[in-house]
Amino acid sequence: MSRILIVTVPSLSEENHSQIADAARKQGFEVLFFEREEDALPAVGEAEILFSRSEKLARNSPHLRWQCTPTAGINHFLGEKVFASSDFVLTNSSGAYGVTIAEHVIMLTLEMLRRQPEYNGIVRSRTWIRNLPVRSIRNSRVTVLGTGDVGLECAIRLRAFEPADLTGVNRSGRNPEMRFDRIVQQDQLDTVLPETDILIITLPGTDETFHMMDERRLGLLPDSALLVNVGRGTVVDQRALEQELRAGRLFAALDVFEKEPLPAEDPLWDCPNLLITPHAAGNTTLPYTRERIVELFLEDFENYCAGRPLARQVNLTAGY
Amino acid sequence: MSRILIVTVPSLSEENHSQIADAARKQGFEVLFFEREEDALPAVGEAEILFSRSEKLARNSPHLRWQCTPTAGINHFLGEKVFASSDFVLTNSSGAYGVTIAEHVIMLTLEMLRRQPEYNGIVRSRTWIRNLPVRSIRNSRVTVLGTGDVGLECAIRLRAFEPADLTGVNRSGRNPEMRFDRIVQQDQLDTVLPETDILIITLPGTDETFHMMDERRLGLLPDSALLVNVGRGTVVDQRALEQELRAGRLFAALDVFEKEPLPAEDPLWDCPNLLITPHAAGNTTLPYTRERIVELFLEDFENYCAGRPLARQVNLTAGY
Repeated sequence: MSRILIVTVPSLSEENHSQIADAARKQGFEVLFFEREEDALPAVGEAEILFSRSEKLARNSPHLRWQCTPTAGINHFLGEKVFASSDFVLTNSSGAYGVTIAEHVIMLTLEMLRRQPEYNGIVRSRTWIRNLPVRSIRNSRVTVLGTGDVGLECAIRLRAFEPADLTGVNRSGRNPEMRFDRIVQQDQLDTVLPETDILIITLPGTDETFHMMDERRLGLLPDSALLVNVGRGTVVDQRALEQELRAGRLFAALDVFEKEPLPAEDPLWDCPNLLITPHAAGNTTLPYTRERIVELFLEDFENYCAGRPLARQVNLTAGY
Repeated sequence: MSRILIVTVPSLSEENHSQIADAARKQGFEVLFFEREEDALPAVGEAEILFSRSEKLARNSPHLRWQCTPTAGINHFLGEKVFASSDFVLTNSSGAYGVTIAEHVIMLTLEMLRRQPEYNGIVRSRTWIRNLPVRSIRNSRVTVLGTGDVGLECAIRLRAFEPADLTGVNRSGRNPEMRFDRIVQQDQLDTVLPETDILIITLPGTDETFHMMDERRLGLLPDSALLVNVGRGTVVDQRALEQELRAGRLFAALDVFEKEPLPAEDPLWDCPNLLITPHAAGNTTLPYTRERIVELFLEDFENYCAGRPLARQVNLTAGY
């Protein structure tokens, strides 16, 4: 019986398919592609490897040894036991989303600094007001919370806008590619917040990051600071942030929320000084992202077949 | 009788005022500040220098020797004769707007590539659609038409987004600070348009640039190309562009228009595939811009008092 690899990553190109099929054939795997996860259900009983975001497929795969999810976040695999075997590895596609999410961050930041939500309203009403006071990334003090793939790609782009200061906050104290002016360790976060004009949050949703930006820490930010969250919604106490926004003390752009979809009755929808996007920063519609996802999978597929440790293994206890 | 310098630049800070007053005093000038141009009218009769965007003040200043306009564009000084004396110099503030206009360009470009106008509509209707296919500056072929201050600052920021190619188009063939991958001379524009995914226009409005992007040249752009204009509206044949946008063949973001304010009945207001801002890219509300304007004026004030040529002299015949 041949070994089975099942792929349910949407919108792959013909070339992506061939790359995966070629690699699988060389290693003696049969590969089955499904555009929709549910169509794969009847086939997963014998699957050894899943390249899929679906935890439901995992639950129905008793022989599963490795699942690679094309997402960066893996929260949907946590909680009740998903995987049959303890001799099992989950990897994610962290590293594929940095470019597209960083572009989203720069866009949101500039939109808020340049008051684009207000200008959009002015243009919708066909009026011609052109002198709203704007702000600039130049000479602003920027802090990036989380210096992984997303934080690093943000830093690379932010640098070109000549901020006064570009600080990264992480646990290791390491400065990736020396792209930040300085690294502050996470337990010193309180010291950097009062010196932050623009706070960019790229952290995953874990027990440790839950409400890291609570009422007290939001209060440490200077007046008119801008908070941009493209990590996970749970990192920010949403109700505490809403109070600061309604008071006109802070500004924010949020792509992620404590509960998604953001419920229709949520008061955030009409909160002032806030720009909302519907978790659209890091989807897989960008060809570059899809190519990276396949590239990263194939790297770990080689590792797997050679019996080497996988590069992007997720720690299911830590949650990332 | 003391020599008179009149300043009508809006929103100057206390510090800006002191800088100008100190420099004037040292050179034996009396300086008069007016927040509103019309308030300066009774005083301009004896003015030797005007630091003002107003051509009306110029017309009423028989002793005027030098006017520095805090704008980059100087179209409002062209046409019928504005200045009494031929022994007269006009300078502009080209060099003060690059940073803020470049931030506007990056914002508009990302908004269009990431379909933010559509996402804004989705969010206004409180729905949760998150997988509109987006595009990226990364791997795109970017052409910047005009490589002056604005084009250069655009190039510095665009580079960080890792475009496939960053081409500048100008008349001199010079590559400013070597920030472009290549420079194509303006008479070779037709060769570069078919290889352009994102076209950024930063040119001034002159006889030479009038309708440079006409129906034929717009037709040379590949399908789905994005045109961003922050130069002057007259550079683009607006009706020809509208046809391409309505056909869904091209995308555009326009900050400038053939007629401004854009008339309420103009069909562009509801044209699809178009993002409009009301000539808001380069206003003087940004503190950095105001500081640069004063800095550049003071440089040329020193030149003027020392009898040296002024650095930012405008050629009233060429129109920039």
